Amino acid sequence: MRFDHAGIATDDAEGLMDVFETAFDASLVHEETFEGMDVRFLDLGNGFFELLEPRDDGPIGTYLERNGPGIHHLALETDDAERALERAREADIDPIDEEPRQGAWGHDVAFLHPKSTGGVLIEFVEH
Amino acid sequence: MRFDHAGIATDDAEGLMDVFETAFDASLVHEETFEGMDVRFLDLGNGFFELLEPRDDGPIGTYLERNGPGIHHLALETDDAERALERAREADIDPIDEEPRQGAWGHDVAFLHPKSTGGVLIEFVEH
Repeated sequence: MRFDHAGIATDDAEGLMDVFETAFDASLVHEETFEGMDVRFLDLGNGFFELLEPRDDGPIGTYLERNGPGIHHLALETDDAERALERAREADIDPIDEEPRQGAWGHDVAFLHPKSTGGVLIEFVEH
Repeated sequence: MRFDHAGIATDDAEGLMDVFETAFDASLVHEETFEGMDVRFLDLGNGFFELLEPRDDGPIGTYLERNGPGIHHLALETDDAERALERAREADIDPIDEEPRQGAWGHDVAFLHPKSTGGVLIEFVEH
């Protein structure tokens, strides 16, 4: 397992992209609209920033209202998301997704309940 | 620049370490007490989790009281923290640390104001 990306909730993805490109050498490699969000992946060499901006009502809009902008989740890359979920259950972690589902960029993803992982929302990603 | 670690504020580093070791194959590679915190680095192959647990009054204790446990910051590795700070200033980012200073594990570190970086507390790390 390895770091894949940090998901960041923002209401100004364009502005943040400029900052991350200029100051951190991150480069835009993928963008799409997914489940009511504009999603942009910026490559940092050994992982990605995933900028999440709400287009309309949806979970990221609600998140921004409650928490303001910032880090929303951390994603860990795995070769086998189903097996990763099994191992998480064996470690007494409650999955949010009982099975992997299709996420942004066409990847298989599964989220874990942050109450099981120290308040950190963790996502498994299988490319 | 590349991802170095995700800093996580916790009041139960032992318990969280168990979970991260068992479910994510992370392994403890360094621990120390630094500026009133117990600091543990868990290696994930292409980066680290840094678990921050307060020992006594200090910034992480205050953070936990205000925000609860969770992701505290993201650290980006750079070959030259001083130059990274210059480039951040050129991108209109306000540094918290005007110059690199010694952080945990003997690394040179510098933090940036999260208001300049979309609510994300970013740390530069030079190993």
